[in-house]
Formats: sequence, C-alpha cells, structure tokens
Amino acid sequence: MTPDLKTHMAVQAIRIETRLDHLLGGSEFLESNKSPPRLLAAMRHGVLNGGKRLRPVLVLECAALLGRCDEGVLDVACALELIHCYSLVHDDLPAMDNDDLRRGKPTVHRAFDEATGILAGDALLTLAFDVIGQEAAHPDATIRLQLSRELSKASGVVGMAGGQMLDLQAEHCDRTEIEIYKFHAMKTGALLRYACRAGAILADASNDNIDRLTRFGTTIGLSFQIADDLLDVVASPEELGKATGKDADAGKATLVGLWGVERSRKELDWLLADAKELLEPFGATAETLNSIAAFIATRSS
Amino acid sequence: MTPDLKTHMAVQAIRIETRLDHLLGGSEFLESNKSPPRLLAAMRHGVLNGGKRLRPVLVLECAALLGRCDEGVLDVACALELIHCYSLVHDDLPAMDNDDLRRGKPTVHRAFDEATGILAGDALLTLAFDVIGQEAAHPDATIRLQLSRELSKASGVVGMAGGQMLDLQAEHCDRTEIEIYKFHAMKTGALLRYACRAGAILADASNDNIDRLTRFGTTIGLSFQIADDLLDVVASPEELGKATGKDADAGKATLVGLWGVERSRKELDWLLADAKELLEPFGATAETLNSIAAFIATRSS
Repeated sequence: MTPDLKTHMAVQAIRIETRLDHLLGGSEFLESNKSPPRLLAAMRHGVLNGGKRLRPVLVLECAALLGRCDEGVLDVACALELIHCYSLVHDDLPAMDNDDLRRGKPTVHRAFDEATGILAGDALLTLAFDVIGQEAAHPDATIRLQLSRELSKASGVVGMAGGQMLDLQAEHCDRTEIEIYKFHAMKTGALLRYACRAGAILADASNDNIDRLTRFGTTIGLSFQIADDLLDVVASPEELGKATGKDADAGKATLVGLWGVERSRKELDWLLADAKELLEPFGATAETLNSIAAFIATRSS
Repeated sequence: MTPDLKTHMAVQAIRIETRLDHLLGGSEFLESNKSPPRLLAAMRHGVLNGGKRLRPVLVLECAALLGRCDEGVLDVACALELIHCYSLVHDDLPAMDNDDLRRGKPTVHRAFDEATGILAGDALLTLAFDVIGQEAAHPDATIRLQLSRELSKASGVVGMAGGQMLDLQAEHCDRTEIEIYKFHAMKTGALLRYACRAGAILADASNDNIDRLTRFGTTIGLSFQIADDLLDVVASPEELGKATGKDADAGKATLVGLWGVERSRKELDWLLADAKELLEPFGATAETLNSIAAFIATRSS
C-alpha cells in the first residue's frame, strides 16, 4: 500500500469505526437498558477490532467519486460492515472453519462461548437491516429499501451465505475452474460488488455509472479472493495474524491450487488492468479507487 | 382449539405455507441456478414443517380486522415466519438448546450437519429482509421500510436474539420475576407483538388502533411463553413432539418455576381477560383474534 493510500484508508477507517462504535453503544438502535451486556460485548468484540474496513471504504469512495461525500453514506457503509463482521464471527465457529484467532485476538466464540458467538453473529446481521434504513442514508425511501433488499440478496443464499456453503462442500472434492469462480463470486465477490454498487446508487449516479462501478466491484472481488488464497500459500502466520496453509490442509478447492502461484499472480495483473480500464472515464478523480484496486491485487506480492 | 378456529387456522396455514414454498423454491428471490441445493434444502427443512404459523396468522388476522385482506399482506407475514424459523434452527444447535427433534422430525443440524444448520439459519434471517420489501406488501416504500426496520428491532439484540441470550444466562441462576418478564418480552414477546402491530400498520390503521393491537400482541406474547413453560412441566413428550421437563433439567428460570402450576394458570386467565378487553371496541369482527388469544392461554389446560 502506498503511504498516501495508507493514510487515507486509516482516516476513513477511523470515521467508520467511530460510527460503528456509536451504532453498537446505545444509540437509537440499541436502547442500552434492553441490550444484554454480554451479547453487546460479544457484538462489539466481533466488530471493533481494527479491521481495514475495505468494504465500507469502497462505499464511501464510490459515492465520493460520483459527488456524494456527506456522513449519510456512512450508514450504508456500516450496515455492510456489520454483515461482513457477522459472517466472520460465524465462519470462525468450530462447526465451520474452527478458528481461534482473528487479527491476532481470540475469535468471538473463544473470547465468550459458542452460543454467544452464534447469537452475536445473528444480532449483527439483524442490526444491519435496521441501520441501512436510516433516513440520512438517502432522502428517498424507495432507494433505501432497494439498498436494503440488495444487501439481503448479496449476503444470503444466492450470495455470501450460499458461497460459504459451496466453499464448505468444496473440501476434498475436485472442482472445475468455473465452479470455483462461481463460489468466489458469491462468497467474497457479492459484498465487494455490493459496496461499489451501493456507493454509486447513494450518489444518484446514472445507470451507466452504476453499472460501471458494479463491474469494478465484481473485478476487485475476484482479485481479492485470489490474493487471499495466495496469501494462505505464501505468507507466514505472523504476517497474516492468523493460521496459514489452511486451504491445502482442508483440501479446499481454490483457483490458486488449480493454477499455481505464478499463473495466479498473472491473473491478478490482468484483473487489475480490467479494473483500471473501468475507472478510466473518471480520470484523476478515481485515483484513490485505482490505488485500492492495486493494493488488493498486489498485497500478496 | 375450537373446531371453527382449527379449520380457519388450517386454511390460513395453507396459504402461508404455499407462499413460503414459493419463496424458497426459485422465485425472483432465489434464482435457482445460484442457490446451492444443499443450503436451499436445509432452509426448506427448517421452514416447511407443518407448523401452526401462529405469527403470520396473527399478521393476517390483525390486518383483516382493520379491513385489509389481500395477498400482499402475506409477504410481511412470511418474512416474520422466516425469522421465527431461523431462530428455531439456531436455538436447536448443539451449542444452544441441543435439540435433536422438532415437530417429531430431526432438527436441521441433525438432518444435515452443524455448519449447514448455522448457514441455513443465517440465510433464512437474511431472506426475510428481502421478502418484506416486496412492493405488494404496501404501496408506500416508507411503510415497507418501517416494517423492515421494526422487524430488525423485534428480532435483534434488543428483541428476540437479546432475549435468547438472557435466557441462556438465566440457567442455574436465581432470577427475579421482573427479570424473567423482561426476557420473556424480548425472546417470545417481541415477534408476537410485531405480528399484531405489523398487521395493523399494513391496514393503514389509526395510531390508536395500531397501539391497541400492539398491546394485544404484548399480552398474548406473555401468555404464549407462560403456556409454553407450563407445557414443558405438564405435557408428555408424545403430546408435544419434543422433549419435556427441559427447563427444570437445565435449571432454567421461568415464571412457572417461580409461581407453580396453579398460579400460572390463574395468570393465564387474567392475561386472557386483558386481551379480550383490548379487542372489545372491534366487537364481533374480532371473534377470530379472541379465539386465538383463548387458544394460546388454554393450550396447556
């Protein structure tokens, strides 16, 4: 990551984290006298962990690219991050990926217990659909509802949750390239695609621009997953803050497993070129988004 | 249950089940080429199980009481039932109540596996927030969004999920009456209250009537939980289709445990009187809702 992008991302991450902290700390969403302290603490543990906040940053950047920079955009960005965080809490559970560490800290079910981990994930997922409807997000309720329903599709059985199911089923099975593409597009791609698309919708972009940023989101989504699988092969646990080599150990089908390291790096270059081409009409305004695409594609180098 | 109510509930349950089957079988919600068959099958197993559909029936009856009978109401009713079903799938998990049977059939994690159970619950919860936004539910997007956000609150950390957390924490602890009231109101009450309230909102009822049906929902919600706890004490596993005596075995704090069987039955009578009083202004039109309230209060007799 370039120093400029690093600073910019850090600033945006602070804006997002501050808002998430508020959403999880007794706002109109969570009348504090009603929230069970243990469940709220587990939800906060699963969310306020110093993540890079890539998905919400993409919402903010895509909205800003098309002229919308106010704080209302943060609600949709945070709703999306709540969905992402719930998925990590549930994916870490013993019955799923059985991870003890996330960002070098105990996962929610290790810091609390399994039942609390399940409930915290459920409650984060549920909260997202309250947060996304906030009036500040967009004056038009039809748009807010569209964003809510698209978030449901991106994260449900035809999106992220469906992709996680296919991923689990792909263990110890031979899968074709096209099958792996499909579940990558669902498991990781759907939320990154949604992030870029939602940013454009929030900025009242033209259909052409919504479509262009949606395709940009799809491209970096694939790029993200390939880089992630590559890191699992080439990085050390210390660099990553979590166990590595897990895909191979679990016999998981990945494109990197199919292609090998060299071809995977080449594919990442091609995807980055595609992403840059999609942003070309926006010229220099798209500098930050270009840098994010480059960061995603090269973080395993 | 009176024979008339039994027939009426059965007819309504068929309407609801038909719609749920459609929602889980390849409509616009679930482009079937994308839904992983195993996850979809697990979701269907968790939903299409011949339940009484009490919550969605309440949505339909409350809307009908105030003059709205068209099929659009079904979307909100089914969204609520999807939430209820997800909560059962997750509550049954080994880390939660660890139940093998539900309605005499294997629970989702027993029929499939634990990971699939977690994901199926997640996907049902997520789907609800797509279904509830359907245009047929109400022409005004502001109302649809209100219903979606209120569903999130009723089922999240300040509602059902929070109540389940308090319930788990109440095992092997002495709890006061007021504490048990609180988590009953959250765990079971919130969805039943929502059902009645949503029906009134869907019918464009006056604020007075929305408030009245909301209070009716709160009353039968408490009634429902007391009757449920009473059944756990007085019914046989065969009558109930699931294990009984579990609350006492788990050392769970319940009002029935605090009050004993006789006082609990008296409280149910008082709650039923309250419910009937709330419906009085509607006269004979409210006959079905009155019968449902009576069924809820007396099903443990």
